[in-house]
Amino acid sequence: MSTIKLPENPEANPRVKAVFDDIRATRKSDFINNFWLYLAFDPALLEETWQGVKSVMAVPSALDPLTKELLYIAVSITNSCRYCVHSHTAAARAKGMTDEIYADLLRVVSTAGRTNQILNAIQIPVDEKFEADT
Amino acid sequence: MSTIKLPENPEANPRVKAVFDDIRATRKSDFINNFWLYLAFDPALLEETWQGVKSVMAVPSALDPLTKELLYIAVSITNSCRYCVHSHTAAARAKGMTDEIYADLLRVVSTAGRTNQILNAIQIPVDEKFEADT
Amino acid sequence: MSTIKLPENPEANPRVKAVFDDIRATRKSDFINNFWLYLAFDPALLEETWQGVKSVMAVPSALDPLTKELLYIAVSITNSCRYCVHSHTAAARAKGMTDEIYADLLRVVSTAGRTNQILNAIQIPVDEKFEADT
Amino acid sequence: MSTIKLPENPEANPRVKAVFDDIRATRKSDFINNFWLYLAFDPALLEETWQGVKSVMAVPSALDPLTKELLYIAVSITNSCRYCVHSHTAAARAKGMTDEIYADLLRVVSTAGRTNQILNAIQIPVDEKFEADT
Amino acid sequence: MSTIKLPENPEANPRVKAVFDDIRATRKSDFINNFWLYLAFDPALLEETWQGVKSVMAVPSALDPLTKELLYIAVSITNSCRYCVHSHTAAARAKGMTDEIYADLLRVVSTAGRTNQILNAIQIPVDEKFEADT
Amino acid sequence: MSTIKLPENPEANPRVKAVFDDIRATRKSDFINNFWLYLAFDPALLEETWQGVKSVMAVPSALDPLTKELLYIAVSITNSCRYCVHSHTAAARAKGMTDEIYADLLRVVSTAGRTNQILNAIQIPVDEKFEADT
Repeated sequence: MSTIKLPENPEANPRVKAVFDDIRATRKSDFINNFWLYLAFDPALLEETWQGVKSVMAVPSALDPLTKELLYIAVSITNSCRYCVHSHTAAARAKGMTDEIYADLLRVVSTAGRTNQILNAIQIPVDEKFEADT
Repeated sequence: MSTIKLPENPEANPRVKAVFDDIRATRKSDFINNFWLYLAFDPALLEETWQGVKSVMAVPSALDPLTKELLYIAVSITNSCRYCVHSHTAAARAKGMTDEIYADLLRVVSTAGRTNQILNAIQIPVDEKFEADT
Repeated sequence: MSTIKLPENPEANPRVKAVFDDIRATRKSDFINNFWLYLAFDPALLEETWQGVKSVMAVPSALDPLTKELLYIAVSITNSCRYCVHSHTAAARAKGMTDEIYADLLRVVSTAGRTNQILNAIQIPVDEKFEADT
Repeated sequence: MSTIKLPENPEANPRVKAVFDDIRATRKSDFINNFWLYLAFDPALLEETWQGVKSVMAVPSALDPLTKELLYIAVSITNSCRYCVHSHTAAARAKGMTDEIYADLLRVVSTAGRTNQILNAIQIPVDEKFEADT
Repeated sequence: MSTIKLPENPEANPRVKAVFDDIRATRKSDFINNFWLYLAFDPALLEETWQGVKSVMAVPSALDPLTKELLYIAVSITNSCRYCVHSHTAAARAKGMTDEIYADLLRVVSTAGRTNQILNAIQIPVDEKFEADT
Repeated sequence: MSTIKLPENPEANPRVKAVFDDIRATRKSDFINNFWLYLAFDPALLEETWQGVKSVMAVPSALDPLTKELLYIAVSITNSCRYCVHSHTAAARAKGMTDEIYADLLRVVSTAGRTNQILNAIQIPVDEKFEADT
């Protein structure tokens, strides 16, 4: 159940078709997942969102592609975004995430979740030593 | 301003001293940051928390130490934990995070923050292809 | 699947019936959605919650009814409240939200989600110019 | 630094004075904390908010007053609400929260923060046994 | 739908069997809920997580068992953790939570959710009186 | 206190100068707030972020400029982003937000915060009537 109808035959719109073609070319796969299919209800939003994700996740940068997927998962878990968790966990596996790495990811994000609670509770002053200017 | 008083002379308690000694030995530094100083108000909580963090962050595992710090930062940002963000950003820098890596981290976590909102809005059904059992 | 049983024949309780009658009169519709049906398990909580929502959402005020629904959606997305997102998106459509407005809403809340992450990361000092007293 | 100016001489407004008088009578104290002082910028919002908090926190109910404060703290920590954490931690201490109870509270909310992350990650199907109707 | 496959015959692994035996003994029940069944994909993570939860929730401490479950629910609601909400609501009922207590819990956590929003909006300075050192 | 040093003389970099010039032209003001000043530590991130915010907030669209600021505030409150709350509240005032509108905004976002908690607790099934396809 979704808040918008799945657009019928979205590639009849040339702007949508251009984005979908770019998704297929970037991923070297014919599969278009539901996120992009539903977002086709507004071609401009589809274009902007795909460009934003592609420029960060599909372009070589300081962090390697798997690390970027792990970070994406970490944020999506914390925001309780069900779809995002599923799609980026699948993407991480496709980029080499083993069960051992996944368990380690869970270990770190759950430890962070634990100490975040303690520190948001105690409201401890930040050490001057952590100041970027010192 | 904090919800508990900074304990005075916490190392007079041998359980606290043992934890602080282990922190110093693990980090090869005399610096004890405020988190542990304040947590000394309850030696059992201090012990459990330090053991939990140490076993995940200071022991070699599938993920390298810098990646673990980046994940810790990602969760702390999303939970809006000011102290955690500061302490783990400092830790990440100490483990080799350059400004270029930091900018890349910000790019990924902000892109995740962006699409998390869209997907928590549209409530799109998860693709069967993402199912771990398929 | 819910944490409480759907009350059977809730309008047998006159306090529940009075709230449901008011919901029907306020909305000019016979439809009572699941939120209120389930909440009938505790008539006092039902009364307080309906009064709170009605006094804010169904009474004319500085903001127009559609804007109030859009704000409600924005908060519900960010809190990852699935039911709330669905019910208030439906309400917004009933009050005139077009697909074009919906896409614009998604653009704003996702941009906010993006920069919120950057600013919760960098922990920038607030400009004095933003101070209400200056 | 706040988004609204601290109202000057707020009790010149009789609606504000009535609320402040009720706060003082309910708490048996002359102290009015900043929340109510700032909220006086809009007397209607002040009235509604105080009535809502008072009816839940200052009226005897199934849960005892200290437990209610602990629950308030737990939510405020998780929402990273700095002011709320401080004011309700102070209120809990006034109602009998010892350091031992506080440490126990931190233990529970941090354990919840930890497993919430794991479960929001793995997206495990809810056991039928937890269904309220079974 | 989950991000990991439900392990088949997990108790063939002696580390998993030891944890499951301890869960059954601690709870005096043969029922192992899905959380632990899925977590068996990584025996070390299963062990650590169970030890952490058990030491906080199943060992007598300053707070009584029901209050600890209520706090767990409060955090899980605020983090929008569907599974956690269901499992700990069921646990709270098993430990004596009546519908009356549940309604009171909902009253407190929703009031906190309400004022958290106002205070995160207005960014009011914390009263000095709330300072732990004063 | 911030996680990055405020860049000195950032406009010596022509990419930074171009963004700052565009900010000044778009806003018809010489004031550059701290967000952009700090973000200048990475000119590419500065460019992308400014383009993203500008294209949504400074370009005419279905929603009027004030409504967009109110939505931005609503998300920022819920994410507990202190800087974002301050900067967008100031922006909303500059675009015509009166105290009366602000109080109404607080009423709506706090009511949403309240019912979000109840619904994330009870986990009520979404009414079929809310389905976009029906």
